[in-house]
Amino acid sequence: MSSPIRVTVWNEYRHEKRSPAIAAIYPEGIHGTLAAALSKHPDMAVRTATLDEPEHGLTDEVLAATDVMLWWGHCAHGEVSDAVVAKVRRRVLEGMGLVVLHSGHYSKIFKALMGTTCSLCWREVGEQEVLWVADPSHPIAEGIGTCIILPNTEMYGEPFGIPVPEEQVFISSFAGGEVFRSGNVWRRGAGRIFYFRPGHESYPIFHNEQVLRVITNAVRYCRPTAAPVADKAPNVPMGWFRKG
Amino acid sequence: MSSPIRVTVWNEYRHEKRSPAIAAIYPEGIHGTLAAALSKHPDMAVRTATLDEPEHGLTDEVLAATDVMLWWGHCAHGEVSDAVVAKVRRRVLEGMGLVVLHSGHYSKIFKALMGTTCSLCWREVGEQEVLWVADPSHPIAEGIGTCIILPNTEMYGEPFGIPVPEEQVFISSFAGGEVFRSGNVWRRGAGRIFYFRPGHESYPIFHNEQVLRVITNAVRYCRPTAAPVADKAPNVPMGWFRKG
Amino acid sequence: MSSPIRVTVWNEYRHEKRSPAIAAIYPEGIHGTLAAALSKHPDMAVRTATLDEPEHGLTDEVLAATDVMLWWGHCAHGEVSDAVVAKVRRRVLEGMGLVVLHSGHYSKIFKALMGTTCSLCWREVGEQEVLWVADPSHPIAEGIGTCIILPNTEMYGEPFGIPVPEEQVFISSFAGGEVFRSGNVWRRGAGRIFYFRPGHESYPIFHNEQVLRVITNAVRYCRPTAAPVADKAPNVPMGWFRKG
Amino acid sequence: MSSPIRVTVWNEYRHEKRSPAIAAIYPEGIHGTLAAALSKHPDMAVRTATLDEPEHGLTDEVLAATDVMLWWGHCAHGEVSDAVVAKVRRRVLEGMGLVVLHSGHYSKIFKALMGTTCSLCWREVGEQEVLWVADPSHPIAEGIGTCIILPNTEMYGEPFGIPVPEEQVFISSFAGGEVFRSGNVWRRGAGRIFYFRPGHESYPIFHNEQVLRVITNAVRYCRPTAAPVADKAPNVPMGWFRKG
Repeated sequence: MSSPIRVTVWNEYRHEKRSPAIAAIYPEGIHGTLAAALSKHPDMAVRTATLDEPEHGLTDEVLAATDVMLWWGHCAHGEVSDAVVAKVRRRVLEGMGLVVLHSGHYSKIFKALMGTTCSLCWREVGEQEVLWVADPSHPIAEGIGTCIILPNTEMYGEPFGIPVPEEQVFISSFAGGEVFRSGNVWRRGAGRIFYFRPGHESYPIFHNEQVLRVITNAVRYCRPTAAPVADKAPNVPMGWFRKG
Repeated sequence: MSSPIRVTVWNEYRHEKRSPAIAAIYPEGIHGTLAAALSKHPDMAVRTATLDEPEHGLTDEVLAATDVMLWWGHCAHGEVSDAVVAKVRRRVLEGMGLVVLHSGHYSKIFKALMGTTCSLCWREVGEQEVLWVADPSHPIAEGIGTCIILPNTEMYGEPFGIPVPEEQVFISSFAGGEVFRSGNVWRRGAGRIFYFRPGHESYPIFHNEQVLRVITNAVRYCRPTAAPVADKAPNVPMGWFRKG
Repeated sequence: MSSPIRVTVWNEYRHEKRSPAIAAIYPEGIHGTLAAALSKHPDMAVRTATLDEPEHGLTDEVLAATDVMLWWGHCAHGEVSDAVVAKVRRRVLEGMGLVVLHSGHYSKIFKALMGTTCSLCWREVGEQEVLWVADPSHPIAEGIGTCIILPNTEMYGEPFGIPVPEEQVFISSFAGGEVFRSGNVWRRGAGRIFYFRPGHESYPIFHNEQVLRVITNAVRYCRPTAAPVADKAPNVPMGWFRKG
Repeated sequence: MSSPIRVTVWNEYRHEKRSPAIAAIYPEGIHGTLAAALSKHPDMAVRTATLDEPEHGLTDEVLAATDVMLWWGHCAHGEVSDAVVAKVRRRVLEGMGLVVLHSGHYSKIFKALMGTTCSLCWREVGEQEVLWVADPSHPIAEGIGTCIILPNTEMYGEPFGIPVPEEQVFISSFAGGEVFRSGNVWRRGAGRIFYFRPGHESYPIFHNEQVLRVITNAVRYCRPTAAPVADKAPNVPMGWFRKG
C-alpha cells in the first residue's frame, strides 16, 4: 500500500481570532475545520500551520515533509515573509502540490507562481453561487455531479487576471449575474496548482460536503507524481548523455 | 494600403425560408444581415454562400478567394457534403480564418477541427444572457467594455465538449443560472478559429450592435497571418536544409 | 486492490506478414511484442486486435472492455473502416486512453482527434535519435532519466502538424540535425492521448527497454480517471439543477 | 497611418565594457547593434536603456512610452533593482510586449512573469545550432523559411524550466545532440512575451540577418493590441453592469 499523502493546511488565522461571529463558524480556525475533514481519509496525514507561528509554521522540516499544501489567506497577505514564500515556491516547482482557496488568489505565493495580477471584481452581499462542472471526467470533480450550489457567498467576477487555465474544472455563476473561472489547474515545474474559489470566512463554506469533496479530490490530484525535482543548471560537456 | 479581407458568410438558410416569423427578423437571411453589416467596413470584401447552392456555394474558386469564413448552420448539418467539409477544413489548416456562430457548434466543420463532441445542454425560453469579457485586452473584445447583455436568447450550458480554449474571450451567464464559454479561440494548422455563441434564428441577435462589433473584430483577428501553408510530408535527404 | 488496466494493442499487421526481414524482428507482430511486454505487469490485462480481423478486431464488446488502446499503423491507414474509427473516437471522448505510436501519426483516428494535418518531414537512413526528457517529473518519463538514445531510426522532423501539446514530455534530435516533438499529451473529452514517436517496423525499437518503459508508463497515465462519460445534449428546463 | 512602435532595447552592458574581444563584436553594445537594426524600419521608434543608468534607464516616463521592450542580461541579473522589475512587470501585464533574449532566461523579469525556475543545461564550445521553424505560419517566423543555422553558439539544452509555451515557434538542435525550445510565446495579462534563445555576447549572433528578422517580427507581434489595461479589483454593487 502506498504511503499517505502528507498535507499541510496553511491558514492566515486572523479573522477567527478577532471576530466572534467568524469564530462561531470556525471555532478551531479554518485550518482546523479543513484538517479535521481531510483527516477522515486514511490516505492523508494532515498537519496545520498558521501565520503567527515562527516561520509561519513552514520550517524547512515541515516543507520537506509536505506533499500537498492548502493555502488560505485574506487580510494579512503582506505579512507573509518573502523568504517563506520563496521556499514554498521552490517546493511547488520541485513537485509539491498547492491548493489555493478563495481569497488566496491575492496571496504572494499564488501571484508568484502565476506571474499575473490575479485581480478580480467582488461583492459581499451573501448571494447564491452555482459552481458548474465544466469537465465532468476530471478527477477533481469526482462525485460532484452537475454543480455545487452555495446559498450564501461573496461574489468574485471576471475578468480574473490569471494565465489561461490548463484544465478548466469549474465555472461559477452568481445570483447577480457575474461569472468566474472557479476551479482551475496549472502545472508549474513539477507541481500541480489548483485554485478553488469558495471559502469566505464569514460563511460556513468549508462545512459544505461538496466543497470538502472537491478539496479532498484536489489533494489527491495534486500529490507529487515523482520524487522531488531539484533545480539545477549544469554545465555539461559534449556527449555527456551517452552511456558507456 | 493593405488589400481588403475577403470574407465569405456561409448560412444554412433554411429557417428563414420556411418560417415567416424568422423571415421577418432576417428578410435576406442571416447571411444577408451579416454580410450587410460587415460590408460597411472598407477593409472587408464580403460574399455569401448557402447550403442549397451548388457545392453549397463553396467552390474551389470561392474557397481560394476567402480569407475568413463565417459559419451558421442549425437544422441541416447532416446535409452538408463531406467533400465540402474536407475542403473547408484544408483551407483552415492552410490559414483561412473560421468564425463559427451559435448552433454551428454542431456543424461538421467545427467538430472536424475540434475532434471532440462539441455537445452542450440547452433551453429555449428567451431568457437573458450576459456575455462577460474575460480578457479585456483581447482584440476580439475591442470596444465592448465589460459585457454584452442580450435580453432574449436560447440558453447553452456547460459542460461544452471542446478542447480547452487557447484564448478565453467571453464567458456567459444566463438568467436560469447556467454558464457557458461563449467566445473561444483555437489555432489549428495556420488557421485561427473563433467560436461565438450568440445567434439563434428566432431572436434578432445579429442586429445587435455589440454582437456585430465582436464578429467584425473576429474577422480581423482571424485573417491569415501568412501566405497559405500547403500540407506536405516531404522525404528529405541528409543535410537538405544547409545552404550553399 | 484496483482492477487491472484493460489494454488493447491494435496493429495494422501487414509489414510483418509480407517481409521476412521485418518478421524476423517481430515474429509475432508488433502487437505481439508489445502485448508480451505489457503483460509482464500485473496491473495490466492485455489483448490484441489487427486490421484483417472482422471489424479490425474492434467489436463493440472489445471497445467497451478497453481502458487504454495502443495504435500502430503505417501502410494501410486508408483500409481502416470509417465506422470503426468513429467508434474508437467516441470511446476516447468517453474516457478511453489512446497511445499512438510512430507512423500512427497519419492514422485516421489520430487525425480525427487532432483535427489537423499531422504531417511531418521524414527520412529513412537508420540514423541515431536522442529523445530528450523535457518534463522530468512527468509520469510518462518515470525511470527514463535524461534521454533515450536509439542508434538506428527513421527520422521525423518538424514542422509537425499538430495542435500545441498540452504536456511536452519528449523532444527528439536526429543525427542529421532535425528536431521533433516526440512525446506529446492532449486531452480530448474525457480521454487522454499520448503520441510517442519511436517505432519503425524495420528497426527493433519495440524491444528497447526504455521505449517499453515509456509505453508502460503511458498506459498507466492514460487510463480513465472516471466512469465513461456518455455524450449527450439535453434540453433542460429552468432550475433543473436545483435539489429538492 | 498608424503610429510607430515605441521600442526600448534594454541591455546589461557589462561584457562589452570589460572585454575587448566582446567590444570588438559589439562596439556600441548589444543594445546599440539591436537598436541600429530595428531603427531601419520606419514603423519603429527605438531607444535604449542600460543597467548602469539611473533607474537602469527605465524611468516611469520611459516605461509609459514603451510599447515593446527587449531584454538582454547575463552576468548582473542580481543587480537589477526589484522596484524596477516590479514596474516592468506591471507594464507587461498592462499590455507592453516583452522580447527576452538568450541569457535573459535567468533575468528577474522573465522569472517573475513565468513563475518557474527557467533553468536549463548549457555548454560553451562554439558549436552549431539549427533553429527549426515549428510553426511556419507564425508571424514571428515570417521570411525565415525552414530554419536558421548559426555556426557558432553557446548551447542551451532541455529540460527548460518554463510553463508549457502557448505558441511554439522555434525548436533548436545543437551539434552535440541537445534540443531546446528556442522560440516561445506566452500571454500574461494584456502583454505578449517572446523568448528567443540566440544571442551570446561572444558570438556575432546579433549581426545575423535572420536573427534580426525574427527579432523585428517579434517586436511587431508583441506590440500592444489594446490601450493599457490598468490593474484593478473593484467592489461592485448588484446590477452595476446593466445599462440605463
